[in-house]
Amino acid sequence: MRQSQFFIKTQKEPPKDEVSINAQLLTRGGFIYKNFAGIYTFFHLGTLVLQKIIKIVREEMDAIGGQEILLNALQDPAIWEKTKRWSDEELDIWFKTKLKNKSELGLASTHEEPLAELMSHYIHSYEDLPIYVYQIQTKFRNELRPRGGLLRTREFIMKDLYSFSSTEEELNEFYETVVRSYTKIFERVGLGDVTYRTFASGGAFSKFSDEFQTVCKAGEDTIYLDERKNIAVNKEIYTDEVLSDLGLNKKDLKELKAVEVGNIFKLGTRFSEPFGLMFEDEQGNKKPVVMGSYGIGPARVMGTIVEVHHDEKGIIWPESVAPFKAHLLNLHADVKKADDIHNRLTESGVDVLYDDRDISSGEKLVEADLIGIPTRIVVSEKTLEKKSVEIKKRGEKSISLLPIDKLHEI
Amino acid sequence: MRQSQFFIKTQKEPPKDEVSINAQLLTRGGFIYKNFAGIYTFFHLGTLVLQKIIKIVREEMDAIGGQEILLNALQDPAIWEKTKRWSDEELDIWFKTKLKNKSELGLASTHEEPLAELMSHYIHSYEDLPIYVYQIQTKFRNELRPRGGLLRTREFIMKDLYSFSSTEEELNEFYETVVRSYTKIFERVGLGDVTYRTFASGGAFSKFSDEFQTVCKAGEDTIYLDERKNIAVNKEIYTDEVLSDLGLNKKDLKELKAVEVGNIFKLGTRFSEPFGLMFEDEQGNKKPVVMGSYGIGPARVMGTIVEVHHDEKGIIWPESVAPFKAHLLNLHADVKKADDIHNRLTESGVDVLYDDRDISSGEKLVEADLIGIPTRIVVSEKTLEKKSVEIKKRGEKSISLLPIDKLHEI
Repeated sequence: MRQSQFFIKTQKEPPKDEVSINAQLLTRGGFIYKNFAGIYTFFHLGTLVLQKIIKIVREEMDAIGGQEILLNALQDPAIWEKTKRWSDEELDIWFKTKLKNKSELGLASTHEEPLAELMSHYIHSYEDLPIYVYQIQTKFRNELRPRGGLLRTREFIMKDLYSFSSTEEELNEFYETVVRSYTKIFERVGLGDVTYRTFASGGAFSKFSDEFQTVCKAGEDTIYLDERKNIAVNKEIYTDEVLSDLGLNKKDLKELKAVEVGNIFKLGTRFSEPFGLMFEDEQGNKKPVVMGSYGIGPARVMGTIVEVHHDEKGIIWPESVAPFKAHLLNLHADVKKADDIHNRLTESGVDVLYDDRDISSGEKLVEADLIGIPTRIVVSEKTLEKKSVEIKKRGEKSISLLPIDKLHEI
Repeated sequence: MRQSQFFIKTQKEPPKDEVSINAQLLTRGGFIYKNFAGIYTFFHLGTLVLQKIIKIVREEMDAIGGQEILLNALQDPAIWEKTKRWSDEELDIWFKTKLKNKSELGLASTHEEPLAELMSHYIHSYEDLPIYVYQIQTKFRNELRPRGGLLRTREFIMKDLYSFSSTEEELNEFYETVVRSYTKIFERVGLGDVTYRTFASGGAFSKFSDEFQTVCKAGEDTIYLDERKNIAVNKEIYTDEVLSDLGLNKKDLKELKAVEVGNIFKLGTRFSEPFGLMFEDEQGNKKPVVMGSYGIGPARVMGTIVEVHHDEKGIIWPESVAPFKAHLLNLHADVKKADDIHNRLTESGVDVLYDDRDISSGEKLVEADLIGIPTRIVVSEKTLEKKSVEIKKRGEKSISLLPIDKLHEI
């Protein structure tokens, strides 16, 4: 795609009202725009990254038998009153609104209640189970203090998976399947090395839940990591009793800041009982369905990737989520020859952004580092003399020459 | 995909509170679930159809140079006060809500204002124009009386494209490009034969806007169609003056019910002026940017397809948007042999739903007609004797035998 026709506007200076690295770099790079506190627009560059993350998440959900569905944001209070979660005291992040007839509605921040209600009409027998459904849909949270750029916003896309099982054993088995799936997702998006399964509070549902915490300075959570055992404990449950439960030793633990990029819960029958979500087992006994829920926020993941992968010049996208694979810069070389290189790249299937604009070489190089596409390809009169282009990986120092007739090897 | 593991629950009887054909058939077929008036959940089958429609729309938007972005639903009133559209008198379908600090927010039913505001920070010169951006995002409309199943809901996915041009001429040219693009989209989703470009009121923006109206009984609009000229007029502007303007003659016009499946507007400078969305032309003169907006609602399109393509037995999906290409039914044939046919089909890349359940042949056949997958493949002891399967196209009467070793030809 030609940059002259691409709507990207980068900025030299970070916006004054953003303190987080991800918001600063993503705004400067032309990925996002802040509408107001906790509310961001994604420009085309940002949408491309978000869609790549979503694609990876979707593939991994499908791979473990997830069936994609789509629930509504607008919520009927009657459903949430059954679990007492309509009240702002119980769930303090509701955005509430009204129909024309003055009856109240809410905007969902999660979907356990409506899905348990819905499934109660469809699940009747052990033969209907297990079922795993997920959606990729916009959630709303009335945050008092949104912060950290894309890390905590008031409106965000969420992947939420829900499991419906006939037994605790089946839930436990699927839960560990999701752990492996999430591990793979965080590896694929480039966060594998710094993301840890972390024990956290199970809330009203169970003793523990599991979080996936990515170690980075911007994190608002504190975790205690046992690097040898590759597990961590969230500060919220960091007690002698819990450590002894988990067989962890204080002296092996390192205190670190981290971002919660995923969380998984064993819900048990907390939601199925209020909604009469029951099934008949093989002996004809009525039992409540055993549920689990599993979340990942793709935009928060995007912000976390920037927090982890950047330098003083800009973002360093992992290839799997980069908006383009390659960034071709024409530094005052013959336009026809540069166009020809662009054509060769697109014809060999390379997803390339082509900076064909009439601006200085310095500006192009600085902007390429800021945007952070993994492979930079420079064409100049000097490289053309050698029938070559200059290749540099973002985040690495070495520069090499590649003959033009080997461009397809990129 | 094996139907025994697929979460689909069909119903013999239509839901009592649905009168529209699309809501009845889509609910009975296990595509959607009504949460409350105007609010629907999409099950996996429904999500598959919706995603196919969205994919077609996205491809056609990309083909005309659209750059996908993602705007927020939550809206700052200050932006909308600039065009006086925050007031419920001016825009009567707002859902309004409040932040914790009591300040008001709204849920967007359209995005002209926030996008004009945003672009005013980025567009400065004629060299920045034209720009075409679109999004596929959830809209909210506080409808007093939602109706017609998926045809008029309170929450729905919308594709909205916005154009930013330096001149009226450039807008007019792109506007006609969108007309061709929309025509292609409606052809591709199977509505081409009954969808007409229809002159409608331009509202506050211009003399006329254009709607794409699909002729069907469920439509809430009335149009007057000149079949020979292939254009129509919406009843709302059906006056002698308009007819004479458009060179239409009353006696050539047929009164028909129709669903508005798309609309396109020339906005001119209606939104750019209040937001100071100006650019410098080649002579250095400051001018307001000339805008257009272009909408299609994929879920409404889905409902309309059902209204147009069904019979007394169920839905007849056009192949382009069908949840699966083929529906393999095992009617009490040897399970291993049926599984083998399923494997052959998936190995040759056929997107197939496999009814492997232990229920009666009658139930399977009735349900297949209801769900409406284009090609039905029956395997039974009788067809196996002839080393064949039985092929029937949904909506056609003829049944033919296909040898198993020619399954890849499907």
